Amino acid sequence: MKNKHIGPQTVALAAPPSVVAFSNIGGKMESQGPLASYFDELCQDSFFGQKTWEKAESTMQEKVLNRALKKAGMDASQLDYVLAGDLLNQCIGSSFSLRSFGIPFYGLYGACSTMGESLALGAMLIDGGFASFVAAMTSSHFCTAERQYRMPVPYGSQRSPTAQWTATASGCTILGHQGDGPYITHVTCGKIVDMGITDGNNMGAAMAPAAHDTLKAHFQATHTSPQDYDLVVTGDLGALGSEILMDLFRKDGIDMTRNYQDCGMLLFDLQAQDMHAGASGCGCSASVLNGYLLRGMREKRWQRLLFCPTGALLSPTSSFQGESVPGICHAVTFSTER
Amino acid sequence: MKNKHIGPQTVALAAPPSVVAFSNIGGKMESQGPLASYFDELCQDSFFGQKTWEKAESTMQEKVLNRALKKAGMDASQLDYVLAGDLLNQCIGSSFSLRSFGIPFYGLYGACSTMGESLALGAMLIDGGFASFVAAMTSSHFCTAERQYRMPVPYGSQRSPTAQWTATASGCTILGHQGDGPYITHVTCGKIVDMGITDGNNMGAAMAPAAHDTLKAHFQATHTSPQDYDLVVTGDLGALGSEILMDLFRKDGIDMTRNYQDCGMLLFDLQAQDMHAGASGCGCSASVLNGYLLRGMREKRWQRLLFCPTGALLSPTSSFQGESVPGICHAVTFSTER
Repeated sequence: MKNKHIGPQTVALAAPPSVVAFSNIGGKMESQGPLASYFDELCQDSFFGQKTWEKAESTMQEKVLNRALKKAGMDASQLDYVLAGDLLNQCIGSSFSLRSFGIPFYGLYGACSTMGESLALGAMLIDGGFASFVAAMTSSHFCTAERQYRMPVPYGSQRSPTAQWTATASGCTILGHQGDGPYITHVTCGKIVDMGITDGNNMGAAMAPAAHDTLKAHFQATHTSPQDYDLVVTGDLGALGSEILMDLFRKDGIDMTRNYQDCGMLLFDLQAQDMHAGASGCGCSASVLNGYLLRGMREKRWQRLLFCPTGALLSPTSSFQGESVPGICHAVTFSTER
Repeated sequence: MKNKHIGPQTVALAAPPSVVAFSNIGGKMESQGPLASYFDELCQDSFFGQKTWEKAESTMQEKVLNRALKKAGMDASQLDYVLAGDLLNQCIGSSFSLRSFGIPFYGLYGACSTMGESLALGAMLIDGGFASFVAAMTSSHFCTAERQYRMPVPYGSQRSPTAQWTATASGCTILGHQGDGPYITHVTCGKIVDMGITDGNNMGAAMAPAAHDTLKAHFQATHTSPQDYDLVVTGDLGALGSEILMDLFRKDGIDMTRNYQDCGMLLFDLQAQDMHAGASGCGCSASVLNGYLLRGMREKRWQRLLFCPTGALLSPTSSFQGESVPGICHAVTFSTER
């Protein structure tokens, strides 16, 4: 077997797997944002018809998986694997949503980088001959994340200016060994990067060095620069983290200002919706990818897109114990040509 | 690319990856158990020299990874990926242990099935040409697990007779595209199975149907029966779960009594150590595999071994909300011959 590693952390897929179908769902805030028309479903009820927010989050994943299967014209039994994870303790958003589907399941934890991790592993499983069809999925919910990481929403805590707003959203991509694209041509696996940031309300700053590290490795391995992509898009660095990332590349002599965007700044209207530094959460990059971005690629708005979701691998316990915030970023290249 | 799926949920590796090195570490209880002589390191201090139990758990992972690398004669930079996860919220046992290594990292959450999940994905990444060397790793710690899932240890809560004792242990396997074995020849990915058990203190009963489901799929796909293995070993079903699994197979007309064991019943002396239903935790099957089992295979005690760690995908939140306990089991075949 030829080694498909082409350089630091990066593999080139021999037979680039195709996006077969994709779906997303969002909540009330997402319905008021600039990308509202790119959602398959928007729900004004934060409980999504359930009794708890955690069950609501599972319901979101159930819904996007069912929608993606329907769009693909597939039955759950045709999926060889589902690769999924979320921010909830023990990833119950994924495990409880998947109970009824009977699909072989590999559970992931990559914090807000999960959409990238699931696509990367899914693409490799297909390219390696281990699967014909794989679903990659994740979610986040503002109310479950606030309760778990910060304060229960009913407390009405004041938010720091650097804080981001966890998206109430979910996204699912079905990948296949054949299809009409876009295709995943390369994946770059991130390393954990920890620059010593201890402010859990400034996750953009904690994650930006990880995005820099992974993107640098990706550009080096693929002999590309930002200009070789129609769009380079990070997951949820937000206003501050995006600035830091562009600064870090400026110091390397690389101009990221022309075709770089961040899902955390695309999902909401930061000013009008009073969103401070932007959106965050696994569901942020997942819902932006599985709506705005992939639809844009299908409509040929972009031919080559580098999708780089970022994750902050902290927990409330690690922060209480004085630890800094380790970051990670996985990058996936989508191309309309194989 | 030839599809390597040979039947339900199961793939046959084209060039079975080899175990290159393995290492384990345990705590005080493990040092008093029957497998003590199969540990690389045993520490009487539950803090492992750290200030908190969570940092102790990260330290265990650091130590086993360093030991495994040393045994393999490798540097961390030679690993293409590390696949790791643990029971702690947001898997901080893994992410904080890996900060200093600089190895590309895919984080997993499979509860106590994590050792199986990491080996399965690692073997496929190597066989698919995406990696030459991969580390698969996990851990658990009695005190971090009690605090998080049940009650802090200092409360002195009484334990139910069906309760299991979370192992304070960690294990790491380094897999490579070449080596002297044992080799991973097949992997079977589990589905989530939930039979409606709601007692979080009886996880063996919750996980046994998942083990039954995965093993049945494995036997069917590989046209084997338990008798084709020198040993079939589950992760941490414990005394009750093991009985249930054997019962389920008895109903299928399959005799599991002759060569079946459970890591949860091997790690401790249940009577003498007052361990109720046995050991549990990601570190249970991980430390039994990466000591007793793999050493036994290298010493030719067993030629073919089916390793099937089981996970209970619950969280305290899901239990508080009245949910049942979903189980999962991943199976990995080790063989001394390629």
